[in-house]
Amino acid sequence: MELQKFKHHIEIRIRTYHVDVQNIVHNAWYLFFIEDARIEYFRSVGMLLDEETFRTKSKFQIVRNTIDYSYPAFFDEVIQIFTRVAYVKNSSVGLEQVILEKKSQRLIVEGTGVAVYLDAKTNRPERLSEEMRTKVSAFEKDDVEFLQ
Amino acid sequence: MELQKFKHHIEIRIRTYHVDVQNIVHNAWYLFFIEDARIEYFRSVGMLLDEETFRTKSKFQIVRNTIDYSYPAFFDEVIQIFTRVAYVKNSSVGLEQVILEKKSQRLIVEGTGVAVYLDAKTNRPERLSEEMRTKVSAFEKDDVEFLQ
Amino acid sequence: MELQKFKHHIEIRIRTYHVDVQNIVHNAWYLFFIEDARIEYFRSVGMLLDEETFRTKSKFQIVRNTIDYSYPAFFDEVIQIFTRVAYVKNSSVGLEQVILEKKSQRLIVEGTGVAVYLDAKTNRPERLSEEMRTKVSAFEKDDVEFLQ
Amino acid sequence: MELQKFKHHIEIRIRTYHVDVQNIVHNAWYLFFIEDARIEYFRSVGMLLDEETFRTKSKFQIVRNTIDYSYPAFFDEVIQIFTRVAYVKNSSVGLEQVILEKKSQRLIVEGTGVAVYLDAKTNRPERLSEEMRTKVSAFEKDDVEFLQ
Repeated sequence: MELQKFKHHIEIRIRTYHVDVQNIVHNAWYLFFIEDARIEYFRSVGMLLDEETFRTKSKFQIVRNTIDYSYPAFFDEVIQIFTRVAYVKNSSVGLEQVILEKKSQRLIVEGTGVAVYLDAKTNRPERLSEEMRTKVSAFEKDDVEFLQ
Repeated sequence: MELQKFKHHIEIRIRTYHVDVQNIVHNAWYLFFIEDARIEYFRSVGMLLDEETFRTKSKFQIVRNTIDYSYPAFFDEVIQIFTRVAYVKNSSVGLEQVILEKKSQRLIVEGTGVAVYLDAKTNRPERLSEEMRTKVSAFEKDDVEFLQ
Repeated sequence: MELQKFKHHIEIRIRTYHVDVQNIVHNAWYLFFIEDARIEYFRSVGMLLDEETFRTKSKFQIVRNTIDYSYPAFFDEVIQIFTRVAYVKNSSVGLEQVILEKKSQRLIVEGTGVAVYLDAKTNRPERLSEEMRTKVSAFEKDDVEFLQ
Repeated sequence: MELQKFKHHIEIRIRTYHVDVQNIVHNAWYLFFIEDARIEYFRSVGMLLDEETFRTKSKFQIVRNTIDYSYPAFFDEVIQIFTRVAYVKNSSVGLEQVILEKKSQRLIVEGTGVAVYLDAKTNRPERLSEEMRTKVSAFEKDDVEFLQ
């Protein structure tokens, strides 16, 4: 992935309980880290994802995740989780994520995800609003594609 | 705690991700194991704790947990989590829990908890119904105290 | 995925804490469920993955996971996690996984994973032993490909 | 607990997956938050708890936790986890923790813990070094008791 396209990242420190019997961060924890990063990404973009929104307006459901693990992360390291929206379709967004170890800048994980936007009442996919498209576009500039 | 008073247990196998950087089960995971055991205990007693109940009738909220860690559990061991209701008050129940490693029967953890019964709409404590008292009494026999 | 090719599954009950703010199982938890299923799969095949093995002989490291989420799982449902080895390469195995809700048999998740076999001391990939190849072959019969 | 005695806190934002089927933070997650706070507390005090230390010098094992849950925390709230060492015995330290919701400053959780210091090789309790006693004393001033 092209790191220069990413405009947002958060940092998380690896805790004792992230590390498993093989003394590396367990593969599942990265999806929690990625979740944190996605929520903070959308906050930065200006899209509020709060309980009220989830219950009364729209849900945001992950329909696909892929993760490639390049190198383990270890206890007490600080990792940087980069997030961007690569494309927007009618009712879904395509996410890309890169995780680096902060100090060495070595590549830990590359991931992709697809999130579908659902009407909170019907649970049916709904078109991402013009407001959201405008906000993502303003944040990502030329690095996001609007496919539908 | 007096193990012979416990009439219910479940078993859980320790997984790679339960084990932390010190190669023992991390202290927080036991509260998840204990949660599993409590839910299954109440199922055996005949009290249905499902989503519908939580949303429309009554919530069950933990207001206190204590855990004493006697000896670590390790990867791939099977642990037994024993549960009993030691007492019932007006709107709360006192829980006791013991965790043993299955093969060696060594003591891993002893815990206590207090769960409060809340009206799902008002979030106010409500008296445990006669039906529930009868069920707990039938399951625990002489080993439970009704304090109010 | 072709469900009839899967010869192994485990069952897990969805717990209160697997469910997130959107009232569905959070996407990351499935990787923990899948981990449980993989460990049990290899136990059934006859490959011991214990702490001793990980520390002194060989590690098993996940280098890729993909998950497609078809339909949410909900609190207190029992899910079945099916696992198979689809292929064996020189030092890696390709895993496939399907998760169904037990009662309705509705499809929850399809996933794939690649695990690399590493020498525990050097952390370098090593060829899967003939013993392991024989065991996987005996378990999977015609449904596994040996690519190298 | 007397909040004015606490000289250290960290902040954590509540994530989608911390919230359970009852729409509040699940009771077990607080022990993970408390772990983060303890590690950071000791970093501030000047005691390095890293993998090398755990493996070759000393382990730090939790032998007791108590948690009183005053009020739930909800999705997207920021909580403050305060930590202090209340007392030091021969080979153990007594920890106190308070969790507040940041904005409203409402009390979420009060907890206590006991951590035992073990020799990494023998797993036997060892006396906390003079260096550590000096550091804790310098950090806590008059608010810590040295009992042995």
